[in-house]
Amino acid sequence: MSLRIGICGLGTVGAAVLGLLKDKSGLLRQRSWTEMEVVAVSARNRNLERPVSLHGIPWFDDPIEMAAHSDIDVIVELIGGSDGIALDICKTALGSHKHIVTANKALIAHHGLDLAEKAEAVGSTIGFEAAVAGGIPVIKVLREGLAANGVDSIYGILNGTSNYILSEMRDNGSDFGTVLKEAQDKGYAEADPQFDIDGTDAAHKLTILAALAFGCRPSFDDVTIAGISDISELDISFSDELGYRIKLLAIARRGPDGYQQSVEPCMVPKVSPIANVEGVFNAVSLHGDRSGPIFLEGRGAGAAPTASAVVADLVDLARGISLPIFGVPTKSLAPNTASVVGTITGRYYVRLMVLDRPGVFAEIAAALRDEDVSMEAILQRTRAPGDLVPVVMTTHEVEQRKIARVLEKFSSLETVIEEPRVIKIEPLGG
Amino acid sequence: MSLRIGICGLGTVGAAVLGLLKDKSGLLRQRSWTEMEVVAVSARNRNLERPVSLHGIPWFDDPIEMAAHSDIDVIVELIGGSDGIALDICKTALGSHKHIVTANKALIAHHGLDLAEKAEAVGSTIGFEAAVAGGIPVIKVLREGLAANGVDSIYGILNGTSNYILSEMRDNGSDFGTVLKEAQDKGYAEADPQFDIDGTDAAHKLTILAALAFGCRPSFDDVTIAGISDISELDISFSDELGYRIKLLAIARRGPDGYQQSVEPCMVPKVSPIANVEGVFNAVSLHGDRSGPIFLEGRGAGAAPTASAVVADLVDLARGISLPIFGVPTKSLAPNTASVVGTITGRYYVRLMVLDRPGVFAEIAAALRDEDVSMEAILQRTRAPGDLVPVVMTTHEVEQRKIARVLEKFSSLETVIEEPRVIKIEPLGG
Repeated sequence: MSLRIGICGLGTVGAAVLGLLKDKSGLLRQRSWTEMEVVAVSARNRNLERPVSLHGIPWFDDPIEMAAHSDIDVIVELIGGSDGIALDICKTALGSHKHIVTANKALIAHHGLDLAEKAEAVGSTIGFEAAVAGGIPVIKVLREGLAANGVDSIYGILNGTSNYILSEMRDNGSDFGTVLKEAQDKGYAEADPQFDIDGTDAAHKLTILAALAFGCRPSFDDVTIAGISDISELDISFSDELGYRIKLLAIARRGPDGYQQSVEPCMVPKVSPIANVEGVFNAVSLHGDRSGPIFLEGRGAGAAPTASAVVADLVDLARGISLPIFGVPTKSLAPNTASVVGTITGRYYVRLMVLDRPGVFAEIAAALRDEDVSMEAILQRTRAPGDLVPVVMTTHEVEQRKIARVLEKFSSLETVIEEPRVIKIEPLGG
Repeated sequence: MSLRIGICGLGTVGAAVLGLLKDKSGLLRQRSWTEMEVVAVSARNRNLERPVSLHGIPWFDDPIEMAAHSDIDVIVELIGGSDGIALDICKTALGSHKHIVTANKALIAHHGLDLAEKAEAVGSTIGFEAAVAGGIPVIKVLREGLAANGVDSIYGILNGTSNYILSEMRDNGSDFGTVLKEAQDKGYAEADPQFDIDGTDAAHKLTILAALAFGCRPSFDDVTIAGISDISELDISFSDELGYRIKLLAIARRGPDGYQQSVEPCMVPKVSPIANVEGVFNAVSLHGDRSGPIFLEGRGAGAAPTASAVVADLVDLARGISLPIFGVPTKSLAPNTASVVGTITGRYYVRLMVLDRPGVFAEIAAALRDEDVSMEAILQRTRAPGDLVPVVMTTHEVEQRKIARVLEKFSSLETVIEEPRVIKIEPLGG
């Protein structure tokens, strides 16, 4: 038996997949009782220097033509982007009854439901293990390993670039811009790091995890997103003093009135496992109603870990494994009803920059009292009189809409100079 | 379509499996496109009070008769024990071309290869996700998620009872016997905890993990085993002072001359993830040559997590998933050649109880010099002159056979009163 594979996109991941299929052909045959055969490749530039030979593999200039080609069982889409050519390739492949394996989180987050419906209709499957958390087989854990579980919450660090930047800022006391530049020089951040640092990439991945965890339709538009570019050295230092680390957390929770899905910088206790996920590593924590808590950590990106996940999906296909794409048939997926954000409760860190004048504290205290928000702790570092001083407070559990109103009041105070900074505190498994 | 299930053994796990299949029949049907039907049960005592009703399910007094029964697709073996009735049931089930799902680590560690060969011959499969690390789907991660990887090392905390005892001894400063008694009262340790505390249970699980990780034949007899009953409060306290925690680690490594497989108490840096796996939790850490390091943590035992794993295996069967039982066909499994233990290098903690007399240190130092073992650190707490005092040292990297010879010399010294205590120091991913 053989599995006939066509690969679209031969960047670092595509080349790594091709190399892995060659290097381990013997092992993969043993694991799947099947020959994994690359029968077609397509990329933008045929003549690029690549770390792996294309000798003997039929080349297609047009990936759409390749996706429609009849002698291929599975199209591996490694081009990226939520729309455009990647989407066209996948639609064409399904239209001609092929399977799809992809590392494209944007595509699955935006068009996963539509593609899954099309795949179901023709009896094809879509593998996207490589789309979330790189080398960690979290899709398989959720969709198969925890098949007997209801999941009520899942959260994680899903973007290695932003986690690397936050780790470096803390370790070296450097500011965001400096660390981003260094990360780009080292290849840990892309030339255009927008989606990594603004939370979009993590939100794509969270959309996919939430759909699998809850059995609901993937809904990227319902994810509340904030990135890390506003995180300052000052907040990192206060966070440390208060016993926390700042992490860009992707969180999905099942609430009484719907799902809460967010990506935002959060403070987590230094002793929690997630706080100790450093550098380019990713991690996912979830709670199954039978399995109990599960924590997974590993490399979230890079050519080799991503290729590991792509080839695992190919081995599954070769083994004849075909599952409901989002864990249950698409018609059984629940509507993705968002919780009313304002009524979600949480604890918050708030930093104000105030003029060090008499009466400042009274004004702050009055604003908190008026909105019925109670403080847990307050920190102030005095400087020379007349200077701007940071005032930092942490709140007890409070509704999001109340903290929003307090912030508005703070902003309107004459003695509060900059926009107040607010960061959610996540107790995590306390 | 339907999957016809027969369950042997209705203890806490068996009852939990039955309850789970009932409670989640709708979800399981969505996930697998199949009706999960319990068509037969067997246990020692039909009339026991159970938390789940057996009404309407055909009862077999004889589990062997049930295993031979023709209208069953899969036998779930939840009786336990490496031999005897559990083994007979599995052989009978395979003999009549049924699949097996089991939580029985002793059985798979001792007879897994033989059973896998029989299963291959008749086209059946054996699911044993529940045999290792309870609710953590580590078998699936190794066999499927990391199908494209070679694995060079895997280690973990695989026994919750012993981990709970070590955590409690450290937190409360209690001795082994006291904590074991408490654990039994709370239900965290069984009435006969022998296999949990002497390392046998962890060794069963390591045997299975090593076979899957390395693609070698499972070989329980090649695991070096030591338990936790000799760990004293004194060693826990010194360990803390030196920056370590003591954990019962199961370790398998691929070395140049073969595999190293051991279960023994080790000191691990307090900051390592494995050091922070506390109480009844289990964890597995491994290194894939493509995925990079992967760390998994969760509940290693208990009725609900174990049932979660058993039912995941049943869902796989219902979905038609059938894989090489140890990841590759049995005939492709490599021989399990053990490394020569003596030449394995490591760092060691050594504690001597000595008479506080002039010249003691000179004797100790001479023994170390004669065997060419160099010390990293030494700790001594003085007491009243003439008292027994502990002398603690940590070594640099040294061959196991050298440390064995040094210990012999120490034992022979007149001033060294008790048997020297030695604990391996595992740097873990440093």
